[in-house]
Amino acid sequence: MGLSTGPCTDTPAPALSVGTAAPEFETVRNLFDSFLAQDRQYSAQLAVYRNGSKVLDLSGGPGLGPGDITGTYSCSKGAAGLVIALLVQDGLLDLDATMASYWPEFGAHGKDRVTVREALAHQAGVPGIAGGLALEEFPTPEAARRLAALTPLWRPGSAFGYHALTMGILMEELCRRVAGRSLQELFDERLRQPYAVDFFLGLPEDEEPRFRGVLFTTVPDSAFPDSEVPDNGWLDPLSLAGVSGNAPVSSILELPNHRVIRAGGMSSAGGIGSADGLARLYAAATTGVEKLPAFLTPATIDAMTEEQVWGLDRCSGQDDAFAVVFMKPHPGRDFGSHLAFGHEGVNGALGFADRGYGIGFGYVPRRSEEGRTNGRAQRLSAAVRQACAESA
Amino acid sequence: MGLSTGPCTDTPAPALSVGTAAPEFETVRNLFDSFLAQDRQYSAQLAVYRNGSKVLDLSGGPGLGPGDITGTYSCSKGAAGLVIALLVQDGLLDLDATMASYWPEFGAHGKDRVTVREALAHQAGVPGIAGGLALEEFPTPEAARRLAALTPLWRPGSAFGYHALTMGILMEELCRRVAGRSLQELFDERLRQPYAVDFFLGLPEDEEPRFRGVLFTTVPDSAFPDSEVPDNGWLDPLSLAGVSGNAPVSSILELPNHRVIRAGGMSSAGGIGSADGLARLYAAATTGVEKLPAFLTPATIDAMTEEQVWGLDRCSGQDDAFAVVFMKPHPGRDFGSHLAFGHEGVNGALGFADRGYGIGFGYVPRRSEEGRTNGRAQRLSAAVRQACAESA
Amino acid sequence: MGLSTGPCTDTPAPALSVGTAAPEFETVRNLFDSFLAQDRQYSAQLAVYRNGSKVLDLSGGPGLGPGDITGTYSCSKGAAGLVIALLVQDGLLDLDATMASYWPEFGAHGKDRVTVREALAHQAGVPGIAGGLALEEFPTPEAARRLAALTPLWRPGSAFGYHALTMGILMEELCRRVAGRSLQELFDERLRQPYAVDFFLGLPEDEEPRFRGVLFTTVPDSAFPDSEVPDNGWLDPLSLAGVSGNAPVSSILELPNHRVIRAGGMSSAGGIGSADGLARLYAAATTGVEKLPAFLTPATIDAMTEEQVWGLDRCSGQDDAFAVVFMKPHPGRDFGSHLAFGHEGVNGALGFADRGYGIGFGYVPRRSEEGRTNGRAQRLSAAVRQACAESA
Repeated sequence: MGLSTGPCTDTPAPALSVGTAAPEFETVRNLFDSFLAQDRQYSAQLAVYRNGSKVLDLSGGPGLGPGDITGTYSCSKGAAGLVIALLVQDGLLDLDATMASYWPEFGAHGKDRVTVREALAHQAGVPGIAGGLALEEFPTPEAARRLAALTPLWRPGSAFGYHALTMGILMEELCRRVAGRSLQELFDERLRQPYAVDFFLGLPEDEEPRFRGVLFTTVPDSAFPDSEVPDNGWLDPLSLAGVSGNAPVSSILELPNHRVIRAGGMSSAGGIGSADGLARLYAAATTGVEKLPAFLTPATIDAMTEEQVWGLDRCSGQDDAFAVVFMKPHPGRDFGSHLAFGHEGVNGALGFADRGYGIGFGYVPRRSEEGRTNGRAQRLSAAVRQACAESA
Repeated sequence: MGLSTGPCTDTPAPALSVGTAAPEFETVRNLFDSFLAQDRQYSAQLAVYRNGSKVLDLSGGPGLGPGDITGTYSCSKGAAGLVIALLVQDGLLDLDATMASYWPEFGAHGKDRVTVREALAHQAGVPGIAGGLALEEFPTPEAARRLAALTPLWRPGSAFGYHALTMGILMEELCRRVAGRSLQELFDERLRQPYAVDFFLGLPEDEEPRFRGVLFTTVPDSAFPDSEVPDNGWLDPLSLAGVSGNAPVSSILELPNHRVIRAGGMSSAGGIGSADGLARLYAAATTGVEKLPAFLTPATIDAMTEEQVWGLDRCSGQDDAFAVVFMKPHPGRDFGSHLAFGHEGVNGALGFADRGYGIGFGYVPRRSEEGRTNGRAQRLSAAVRQACAESA
Repeated sequence: MGLSTGPCTDTPAPALSVGTAAPEFETVRNLFDSFLAQDRQYSAQLAVYRNGSKVLDLSGGPGLGPGDITGTYSCSKGAAGLVIALLVQDGLLDLDATMASYWPEFGAHGKDRVTVREALAHQAGVPGIAGGLALEEFPTPEAARRLAALTPLWRPGSAFGYHALTMGILMEELCRRVAGRSLQELFDERLRQPYAVDFFLGLPEDEEPRFRGVLFTTVPDSAFPDSEVPDNGWLDPLSLAGVSGNAPVSSILELPNHRVIRAGGMSSAGGIGSADGLARLYAAATTGVEKLPAFLTPATIDAMTEEQVWGLDRCSGQDDAFAVVFMKPHPGRDFGSHLAFGHEGVNGALGFADRGYGIGFGYVPRRSEEGRTNGRAQRLSAAVRQACAESA
């Protein structure tokens, strides 16, 4: 699909998306089609719910069709963040309590006064674990034990820096401590199944045939000449970015292609799903979907999505903005109105809800691409919001 | 003027400025002439006072001559800020008092402890009014009433973000409350008339013939196919930048072309004048002009121009620096020495005083252009200061 | 060396470095050689110690050979910072004491509560001296007297801004006050001589023949048509950057070419040496060199290298990060792991220690070049660390 199969001509047929778009969103479909036309290798899915009804469900390009699922990287944090929101809504978790009040071991080495709010807004100073964590170790209590024992890399609360992988460990251990269940189980029972969400934290074996491996630019692996690793240059495993990315063990880009990651469903980056899954999840949280009411109250959403930190990220060195768990829009990552919240993935995938427009949005590319404000996801988001504004 | 009228030749005559330049500022005139030569559509005015005497008064290019006036956008805030400085100097306004002590209604929704200093340095978290304000509503008590009722978009004092239009409402209501007069009346009586300043907050009908409409790049208006709107892409009216820019109602770029804006003279963006008007105003404030002494004391200037905030602006996402009302120079907007203060307009216009060099500076282009450090205004400012340093 | 002397051919011989590289660092030598091949005017030295033994000692290009020394600009601050570290280790200097407790005159004009920690992390608000300091005045008590009398340009502790030249005055006066000796004497007796370090704060007359003048792009001096000044555009001497750079008196780039600067050895920018000198100095501090143990304890290094400030620098307008005296790596100046500390010079020279890899690193170009993350020094540093990681 989308690949020219005939002889080269002056006017190649446009690469067109498949799927449906409500009439007021034809401009969005045109933009998506223009992406497909510009790059014959490009493939992606796009889905949007408005006021609980699906208004866009498109896919196009080679290798990622309507029924497929793939890796979404840190969009997973958004899915897991919705479970944290449920714990807050249920009264099990208090954002202003200390982490140590739920998880005493976390209080070691000067972390005893770190609040849940601070820890889940990347402020605790534990962006990674020295020497790295084995991939299979991530969604386990052993990962939490090692994390709890860390000395913070900055004075907690004095700065924030993206906890690319430890954010998941923090969320998962909080779940175990306050609910006595794994975050993955709670996601499955309370969100995925009841709302028929095509997004998995822990992909069952029988869903594996639908999985399409993530693609990224590669170079030969200098350590193993027969294999390949992502081409992102050398990342110092002892830099804050390298510590945050678990660089001593692997590249983040590879993660979804490991079955152990898909099976474990690590909250930080192990979520597998479709664009529709992401869009439906955020719609279910905020507007409800079809006949089902929203699973979060406005008060819970307010509490979870108040911006906590803003400015220069200590690990990435880029400007960013975070609520509890969720990313907030800002000029460098301008995915929504000031009422939006969600999470981007390192591959350019994006899932968010925007209460300013009553939408849930999901976008998943098959091949890693640039994200942030000029990325395809955010240009599509702007087109969606403009269409909403003009058809309000 | 400046447009070739004869047949196209290999060596077109240079587009030259008209007006006067003191000998030590010939380098500045050469730079201004080079701008005119590079772009035959470019037109602007430039004026500088040094130690109270005019040393530069130039204009050039089509459609903006020596006696003309045009829109200056947020340079208006600088003019209004000088009225605020008078209120401070008169002892009517205390920067460290709370806004609510003068304006009780402003204390609603957690804004009761916001100080005048914070509010006038873009820290109150009320950068715009949900749904937008009608243009004719701006310089009215109704605008102030709606502003007072807002819930702040961030915890007041925890961040700053450019209050592109509400800054004027804040200044105007403070004037009404502490002086019982409109800011526009005070500006007219205490500054414009006594110092013969060619700058208006509220353009009288009989000055209208001198007004030249602002120009900007346009696109067809999708809502009204027969008319045109500024070509700045789509700005989400629910983003912080959109809220700050009153995007639900109009584009800031259009404002000076509406008679209702020129007549009302909104303090945030409604000022109409010439480059000489801006330069003379800042000279009158700091060095005096001709035989008239400075209307502000050094102590008042110190109090008003102490930098309050510095860094990433919450609404624009750019680095910026503000004193009370006034912009301060910084590497991204490097218009003067560390002793300078003033305000830029979105069209690239600039007015400031620099006590390091004893100058008042005004620059007004007819067509909107890029501002900040690489903009024409700031390159002219650097040339002016270099000429001052070399002829000290 | 490195300049083609024969006729122009299709395949010019590569410009090759001279010196030694341990086998595991051949990749670094190749990178250095590629710099030489790309630019026949380029010349530089590179040296690295690993666990106390020299593993790289290279030079190449015209005019800077193995036995030569040249200007290192602010790498000097790193050398001086190691003397400050000795004073802390000896118990003579307490980072949390106020500056005024050692130097009562410094307490003037609201600086009485500034701590040593703050002042040595560019937070005191005294980045320069109004009107500038004469070059011969720098390492003298008179410079300290003028500095002590300053009113801070920002509220001390509320921001940081690079104190390009006053940092040295602060360090030197602290030395005089707590040790009764000049910093230059202490450096010579406790560091340079015992560890045979080829780096001088105060270059003796008999070392002058080894000095190679620094090169930089020049333009004719408008004030003195027969001479030349660095081509950096005009820097407003009254801007914070100009105040910090002592712009009323001279350009920083010229400094090492003045014998009075080399002789005085100002701690901020007067250090003269070789790449080996810088690398050996940092190795001696942290791992020891050859048979000599490290002169700093891990506790001293921890205390001196804890990051104090991070973000937008008030004087340079760039992102930066500082410990007490030392630069810390960050994405914009990514010279090492999160355990590294050192200092870059305005010419692109770099000296640092990285405890993550047990290395001391020195790099000195003869002609000023761009520094920070994309500069040659930092690309060489990344190659060195990658080689360490792959041969651990």
